[in-house]
Amino acid sequence: MANKTYTVAVVGATGAVGEQMLKYLEERQFPVKELRPLASKRSAGGTIRFRGQDVVVQEATPEAFEGVDIALFSAGGSVSEKLAPEAVKRGAVVIDNTNAFRMHPEVPLVVPEVNKEAIRNHKGIIANPNCSTIQMVVALKPLYDRYGVDRVIVSTYQAVSGSGWQAVVELEKQTQASLAGDQLPLNVMPVSKLDKHYPIAFNVIPQCDVAQENGFTLEEMKMVRETKKIFDDPEIKVTATCVRVPVYRGHSESVYVELKQDFDLEEVRSLLENAPGIVVKDDIQEQVYPMPIDAVDRTEVFVGRIRRDLHHPRALNLWVVSDNLLKGAATNAIQIAEALIAEE
Amino acid sequence: MANKTYTVAVVGATGAVGEQMLKYLEERQFPVKELRPLASKRSAGGTIRFRGQDVVVQEATPEAFEGVDIALFSAGGSVSEKLAPEAVKRGAVVIDNTNAFRMHPEVPLVVPEVNKEAIRNHKGIIANPNCSTIQMVVALKPLYDRYGVDRVIVSTYQAVSGSGWQAVVELEKQTQASLAGDQLPLNVMPVSKLDKHYPIAFNVIPQCDVAQENGFTLEEMKMVRETKKIFDDPEIKVTATCVRVPVYRGHSESVYVELKQDFDLEEVRSLLENAPGIVVKDDIQEQVYPMPIDAVDRTEVFVGRIRRDLHHPRALNLWVVSDNLLKGAATNAIQIAEALIAEE
Repeated sequence: MANKTYTVAVVGATGAVGEQMLKYLEERQFPVKELRPLASKRSAGGTIRFRGQDVVVQEATPEAFEGVDIALFSAGGSVSEKLAPEAVKRGAVVIDNTNAFRMHPEVPLVVPEVNKEAIRNHKGIIANPNCSTIQMVVALKPLYDRYGVDRVIVSTYQAVSGSGWQAVVELEKQTQASLAGDQLPLNVMPVSKLDKHYPIAFNVIPQCDVAQENGFTLEEMKMVRETKKIFDDPEIKVTATCVRVPVYRGHSESVYVELKQDFDLEEVRSLLENAPGIVVKDDIQEQVYPMPIDAVDRTEVFVGRIRRDLHHPRALNLWVVSDNLLKGAATNAIQIAEALIAEE
Repeated sequence: MANKTYTVAVVGATGAVGEQMLKYLEERQFPVKELRPLASKRSAGGTIRFRGQDVVVQEATPEAFEGVDIALFSAGGSVSEKLAPEAVKRGAVVIDNTNAFRMHPEVPLVVPEVNKEAIRNHKGIIANPNCSTIQMVVALKPLYDRYGVDRVIVSTYQAVSGSGWQAVVELEKQTQASLAGDQLPLNVMPVSKLDKHYPIAFNVIPQCDVAQENGFTLEEMKMVRETKKIFDDPEIKVTATCVRVPVYRGHSESVYVELKQDFDLEEVRSLLENAPGIVVKDDIQEQVYPMPIDAVDRTEVFVGRIRRDLHHPRALNLWVVSDNLLKGAATNAIQIAEALIAEE
């Protein structure tokens, strides 16, 4: 097993998350025998750099998955819906970063720090949760294990890169236009496929993803549903308000947690400090707390502003920050791949 | 009374809020007999424009309040502490926009839409609440009256102008430097008088104002304490997380409210629509919701994302936006002045 190597496909290799996947596969020295970067017809033919070599990007077709062992998908839900079954049919295990299969009962939804064991039950597809869910459940896990979690009320401060490179470019161009007093380009935010587009430069938008019937957005409902599935606990209650802010990378979350038992605040801090994947930055007196600007290119989840609620005896408040392209997407996907090959 | 006119001092006339006070006194045709713009020694001698005239800014000294009927203070807590009693001694009624007297038991803390009647009890000083509190209590008032409010969990998205013009300039300069790849000027955010300064351009900072012993910040505790005082209800529970975002003007708030009784969501919407000072913008299906960019230069409080909580039977979620320099400061102060002269 130690010497086994794998043919790895990255679908969406030229996208914001795909680029981080390639970088991270290289940095973590993932045992790649052959890398197969795949993308839309439009992006095919270009090259990406991997381990000092130029690798040609191929078009993502069903045949492109012949001989692939692990296929990392991050090219949008419709691409996954169409091609993930084709990859599985050809013998690949798919790790899918889109919303396409996350709630499918036969698809494990995995954050290795929380439910690595769920990987064993896969039937070809393993889903990577939504970025805003991942960082929250990593922070909740040690509290869940020690005290139980009754409910969570979360408000997010989400970076534009969650909507892809086009959103990053739009924030930059809008900011330049705003400073120059020019008209702002408005094509992407809050949801590119919807009719109305609003400025994100020097603004905040209380909508990430499309609206649902119940008045919440899909992004908010992802946090609600995925948290239950990852903890395998239909009783855990989450209410979310998801908001886009003019930040390139790094999602922040204001998290109120009601535990099932009373807790000791020092013990909470110690549990978080000792939990895998978490870095505690928590000393408001010394102005120490997590910020997105410090989380960029880091794979951990940063937790701070840890404080007992003023009113509810079993509640506390946290501030949780992580790089949405790394732990929120690429890092988590590759950690799943690492756990997968460790099981073999 | 209808023809009575007043000598009005504006202390901090050259500041971010002072400028809006002058503009708003003019627009609302407040019955000003004489305007007396006051500022620090450094700013004295310059002129401001009022009703088409240049008016010389005088130094704010005790003697400058001779003959003043109404003194609007917005030049920081230490200036108010020193000079508000001097103004009162000389017969002025002080409307103070700083934190200096807000929690003093003999000082009414007033948001006219909520507790205008408290003005009657003043003993020379009336306090204007903190910007983030004002917009929240305006939105809560119709719900409080109809159902009672048990508790509130709020996360804020606060504009930099809450820290004055220097913060507005810093956001702009940092943004320019960031786009150019230059070193960022770091002098103001999150709290100018503290040791450490962090970038606000393309970042969010989970600290507004100084830390308190309990791990909350002063800004957060203002929301907790001021809400109780304004509603004259020590039982109302507020938990706040206050966060600075790279927005020039307009505070946003994600507000979770537990009511004392069950409610009908359509009735909630109708109560909010008919409440003074509120504009409801609420249709997520059509991408209609408040955003800071739309609230600038508007005096109302905008409410949207109105939705029943997914779990708690008496809770709902709101998104509340207002111009922090207007309803959050200047407009509210002048509405207090209007209510004051109407009482005479």
